[in-house]
Amino acid sequence: MEPFRGRIGIIGSGALGCFYGARLSRAGFDVHFLMRRDFDAVRENGLKVFSFEGDFVIRPPVFASALSLGLCDLVIVGFKTTDNHVLPDLLGPSCNLHTVVLTLQNGLGNEEAVALALAAKSDARPPSETAKQVMGGTAFLCSTRTEPGVVCHTDHGFIRLAEFSGGPRERTRAIAEMFRCAGIDCAVRESVAAIRWEKLVWNIPFNGLGVAAGRADTAAILSDPDLRGTVEELMLEVIAGARADGAEIDPGLAADLMKKTETMGAYRSSMQIDYECGRPVEVEAILGEPLRRARCAGVATPRLQMLYGIVRRLDYLNRLDKE
Amino acid sequence: MEPFRGRIGIIGSGALGCFYGARLSRAGFDVHFLMRRDFDAVRENGLKVFSFEGDFVIRPPVFASALSLGLCDLVIVGFKTTDNHVLPDLLGPSCNLHTVVLTLQNGLGNEEAVALALAAKSDARPPSETAKQVMGGTAFLCSTRTEPGVVCHTDHGFIRLAEFSGGPRERTRAIAEMFRCAGIDCAVRESVAAIRWEKLVWNIPFNGLGVAAGRADTAAILSDPDLRGTVEELMLEVIAGARADGAEIDPGLAADLMKKTETMGAYRSSMQIDYECGRPVEVEAILGEPLRRARCAGVATPRLQMLYGIVRRLDYLNRLDKE
Repeated sequence: MEPFRGRIGIIGSGALGCFYGARLSRAGFDVHFLMRRDFDAVRENGLKVFSFEGDFVIRPPVFASALSLGLCDLVIVGFKTTDNHVLPDLLGPSCNLHTVVLTLQNGLGNEEAVALALAAKSDARPPSETAKQVMGGTAFLCSTRTEPGVVCHTDHGFIRLAEFSGGPRERTRAIAEMFRCAGIDCAVRESVAAIRWEKLVWNIPFNGLGVAAGRADTAAILSDPDLRGTVEELMLEVIAGARADGAEIDPGLAADLMKKTETMGAYRSSMQIDYECGRPVEVEAILGEPLRRARCAGVATPRLQMLYGIVRRLDYLNRLDKE
Repeated sequence: MEPFRGRIGIIGSGALGCFYGARLSRAGFDVHFLMRRDFDAVRENGLKVFSFEGDFVIRPPVFASALSLGLCDLVIVGFKTTDNHVLPDLLGPSCNLHTVVLTLQNGLGNEEAVALALAAKSDARPPSETAKQVMGGTAFLCSTRTEPGVVCHTDHGFIRLAEFSGGPRERTRAIAEMFRCAGIDCAVRESVAAIRWEKLVWNIPFNGLGVAAGRADTAAILSDPDLRGTVEELMLEVIAGARADGAEIDPGLAADLMKKTETMGAYRSSMQIDYECGRPVEVEAILGEPLRRARCAGVATPRLQMLYGIVRRLDYLNRLDKE
């Protein structure tokens, strides 16, 4: 299988977008970055990656607006889901009928948001059509943007990919091969729902309680018997919701994830970090949308409902405090 | 029925102890106050009650130590359950074999704590014996200690009383009559477990979420559909736990309480106020002990478990922040 070749646009150049974009760029792919906060730093000093797999610097083409980024064959969306309202503005100038858009964001509802954003363009095809341009991926990556133009990559990096509409096709495998050529482990899966829900089995309890239980990293949560018990039960709720929503997930995943989390030390989830930094948290993508889908599928998820209610309010107060 | 007559000691002279003690004192009962923070103010200016039922001042005998308070016929315990570790020291000098101790504290486990404290005295009877000296009561009272020696009483005040060991007897009715002589509505009940659990049906959701969901008064909780749904389900969990623990509570109580809470406006629970003032919250009496009893009785209370885990950790962090 030949890797995907074409003009690649990275929109949302935080730690995730910068890391994958830089690895692809270093491997010779034609990567262009749309940047806001990091624009000046990267144009002046390049994009620096400090990684346990080897440090490097690249000097990629970087753009300050979607208009100047221009048309791409593949757009990779890496920003926080709390910014999804800007998708129409960013995808408008960079996409045509043939552009593939891959969202590597967290949670549920992002493929839908991309398809709707593409449908909002002037050529006005319905979302059922634009959905065919959309792919979803889950990224298992420990990376942090430490300062403008600098990313620190401390662990993992593998990606799972799936088409939003229908099963894998040639382009799916070509894009997976592209990531592999950049040294990134990448697997193609049948169902985007399955990979999204699979990641949520961990993300819902540890992101949610990381905020609700106050400065609670994984070690703090696991060391409290009632929080730990709540995590285990939340995982089973999420798996039940996933299965009812059509995502086949092995119930044994919960026990596996508990074991893996034991070895992670005191890990702070992205939602906890966002919350503590006073930033909006991804409450809808990670908690709200899964709750709504489980509910639609007729599955009771009492702990998820409570967690969503608490975190949504804490997020609201957090924003209020910043004003 | 003649009202109880005898030497009364009020220990724990916060808003609750001061209010009931002052009303009893004004009605001619022989009330003595053990005070710490308010000692100087009350000795100098008396104890002032501003009440929707009429303001008044009394100049009662006030003591700074349990030793100087001396032996009482009835001791009323009104302090926060987070101070229950001082019960042996305070009850030691004020109680003999005949003293009745009435705890008006919140939550579960207080009658047990009093019986154990009495059993720790030098005459060393077993708790099964000292339990017969103990009565429990639930107070429905809106009062605040606004400054040393000043209590503001804004609503309600009625008390439900029960013996800890066995059903009501003559002294139970005499003590109820004493409160009534002081203008306080007071009912005698068969079971202390029933009155305790009954109050918890409201206290668990609104106190717990008042802390967990951040600055959440009753209006904030009721206006969020997922927090409101969680309250309703928590109430049913508590009622199921209560019934399994032997307390007969009508499941219709949940709907009644929801309706009543609607009319309360933006009411802040005592736990929320304590938390926001940086004080320890009554997490064990209000959340932990009910959870343990429901669990022992074989009833699953998933939301209560989660709430307990979250609030216990928030309380811990709150104390840490104060250090």
